[in-house]
Amino acid sequence: MTTLRPQASFRTASAEDAIRVLDELRRTGPLVHCMTNIVVAGFTANVLLAVGASPAMVENSEESAEFAQIADAVLVNFGTLSPDRVVAMRAAVAAATRAGTPWVLDPVAVGALGYRTRFAAELVTARPAVVRGNASEILSLAGATGSAGRGVDSTSTSAEALDEASGLARRMGTTVAVSGAVDYLTDGTDVLEVHSGHELMTRVTGVGCALGALVAACCAVEATPLIAAGAATTILTVAAEVAAARSAGPGSFAVALLDALHGLDAAALRTHLG
Amino acid sequence: MTTLRPQASFRTASAEDAIRVLDELRRTGPLVHCMTNIVVAGFTANVLLAVGASPAMVENSEESAEFAQIADAVLVNFGTLSPDRVVAMRAAVAAATRAGTPWVLDPVAVGALGYRTRFAAELVTARPAVVRGNASEILSLAGATGSAGRGVDSTSTSAEALDEASGLARRMGTTVAVSGAVDYLTDGTDVLEVHSGHELMTRVTGVGCALGALVAACCAVEATPLIAAGAATTILTVAAEVAAARSAGPGSFAVALLDALHGLDAAALRTHLG
Amino acid sequence: MTTLRPQASFRTASAEDAIRVLDELRRTGPLVHCMTNIVVAGFTANVLLAVGASPAMVENSEESAEFAQIADAVLVNFGTLSPDRVVAMRAAVAAATRAGTPWVLDPVAVGALGYRTRFAAELVTARPAVVRGNASEILSLAGATGSAGRGVDSTSTSAEALDEASGLARRMGTTVAVSGAVDYLTDGTDVLEVHSGHELMTRVTGVGCALGALVAACCAVEATPLIAAGAATTILTVAAEVAAARSAGPGSFAVALLDALHGLDAAALRTHLG
Repeated sequence: MTTLRPQASFRTASAEDAIRVLDELRRTGPLVHCMTNIVVAGFTANVLLAVGASPAMVENSEESAEFAQIADAVLVNFGTLSPDRVVAMRAAVAAATRAGTPWVLDPVAVGALGYRTRFAAELVTARPAVVRGNASEILSLAGATGSAGRGVDSTSTSAEALDEASGLARRMGTTVAVSGAVDYLTDGTDVLEVHSGHELMTRVTGVGCALGALVAACCAVEATPLIAAGAATTILTVAAEVAAARSAGPGSFAVALLDALHGLDAAALRTHLG
Repeated sequence: MTTLRPQASFRTASAEDAIRVLDELRRTGPLVHCMTNIVVAGFTANVLLAVGASPAMVENSEESAEFAQIADAVLVNFGTLSPDRVVAMRAAVAAATRAGTPWVLDPVAVGALGYRTRFAAELVTARPAVVRGNASEILSLAGATGSAGRGVDSTSTSAEALDEASGLARRMGTTVAVSGAVDYLTDGTDVLEVHSGHELMTRVTGVGCALGALVAACCAVEATPLIAAGAATTILTVAAEVAAARSAGPGSFAVALLDALHGLDAAALRTHLG
Repeated sequence: MTTLRPQASFRTASAEDAIRVLDELRRTGPLVHCMTNIVVAGFTANVLLAVGASPAMVENSEESAEFAQIADAVLVNFGTLSPDRVVAMRAAVAAATRAGTPWVLDPVAVGALGYRTRFAAELVTARPAVVRGNASEILSLAGATGSAGRGVDSTSTSAEALDEASGLARRMGTTVAVSGAVDYLTDGTDVLEVHSGHELMTRVTGVGCALGALVAACCAVEATPLIAAGAATTILTVAAEVAAARSAGPGSFAVALLDALHGLDAAALRTHLG
């Protein structure tokens, strides 16, 4: 049983960190090697392009290790797993580790299915910079019993998963990002909260997956994973608030979200977090 | 040679059924296991999310049977078939059958290609709740000779396929939905017609595939496949009329279609079917 | 070392050719067999539908040869390569060659990765009607040393690649299209330039890949590959200018691009090239 340490510090993710990281993304255009799924690959690429990063999807076992060495960050997303993707992901993680390149684990639907649950338990020991998931996924990965996650929907709140997230972060030496109405990010000691966002984010496929990719991009330009994950979450959720104000439903919201990410500036970040 | 039985009843699908089924979708958020293709996976997920269902794409043979047992309905779409997907689909269908979970067959491009034609002929004997296709696909599946379908385009009208659709429904104990300018749905005895819709539906990829997914979602909340298929077709085609009125072309139509599905209410369904 | 022949003629691609080819696309709706990648498959299909062509994505080795014989043109795009796709692409190219069907090679990220570089070097000898790529990809394929392309970004300008493109076109008996701020298209003797376009094209995933598909569609209705490639490039880049004027960022640009392709007419083509 893990518990938050008494001395855990809670604070809201900083608008200034998000501004600085977004500037770096646009200045350097980091190459993000995305191993992701057939549902969200296009949207993920568009989210990364909208913030100024450079996405590339290379998912076959013949090329994944070679490409992970070229990339500035690597995303490993479980959405549509397959035996070849498993081999390719293992090779990419090993190559990223050798090269000192940060990589992010997004274990979609872990807990609901045995095959991916076992693979997630294997990969999480290989020191991802950040693990991102919803509460059910994080609870499953933490080995919590009683998690009733089915599919990609979370049946637990992010706050309920924070305790287990913190223990997972400490045991694995990683940072854990729990998505939800409030996002919690923790390295096992400190906790960042992100309160921005909008309900329409749950009515468009791939918003959570795109957050994982954005966390990877931010890890390419910010060395502290907790700060990088906080900046990525802030950037996406503030853009979502901007977009929701211009939307008539989930279709126009997804379009406006890309526009908002492209046009996001310091003033908007400060206003929405103020 | 099959013919419509003399006593076949023709009626227009009911707005009230569509209203009731849509309410149920939003109230219960059924989990729809989609085995579909790389072209339309994202759009399919967004259509399901827009009406309140919960899509999950699991297509590998290691997980498809396990996931079909968790899901409330299963979609088997042939778009981009492969040997592994064939194995995964067989396993998912078997698991759905054991669990009593309704599943929908969408045999994209059947007839044009031998590999998928043989597989469709195999799967259709496993009692799908609904088979959905355009006229050429349904004619091919029914074993009609002379069908000149090539790719996913239909060279026959839906009315021309109704006779064979009816025979197929009776022989296989299923419901057949034939998409076209007019949609015909039949369980081999009764025929529902849906006259709503818009030409722009044919200029956006995946609208037909998304209809298959929506039929599956409706089968999760409505026990009679003919009613479920009628409700799904009504919901999608009325939303298409709403969307077309707000569109400048196929790009904005696809976006507006998701918005319209999200905002669709009883008044709009009654007005457009009135 | 290859150089442009002294007698090389430079001219701007013709609006009248683009108008004629676009009319043919809409009149005949050619079936384009796309073997492309999971990131852009949906967007590619929507671009082809918006101009009136009929896309079909068949990428498995069981069906690709059979389908290439039915199709009016074939696209071979390397985006997310895999061993099965390699086998399927080889078979499709052989079948297209036997049938006299034009096919287009889009060797995404060639040069950055050994596996696809070797396969591109093999396929380019099989007489594609057109090879399309950015400057780095074309330089890599031409065997130029010193190309520093990484991923799908081009670190060389299209003008810098023109010399090698011309040599490649002559050696392989093909037409080479180099995408960039200015597009250069050459059959090794003549050079077409296209100056239209917009920077937002680089902030949406799949615009380059969709251009490859559009080149294939145009090759189905125009026998001279250089003219077909010029028309495709003109159609897409002029639509991009129309779309950019109606966009608030990359999300709305992608939507407006499909609307603009659908509504593109002779007047717009003449005005933007005038």
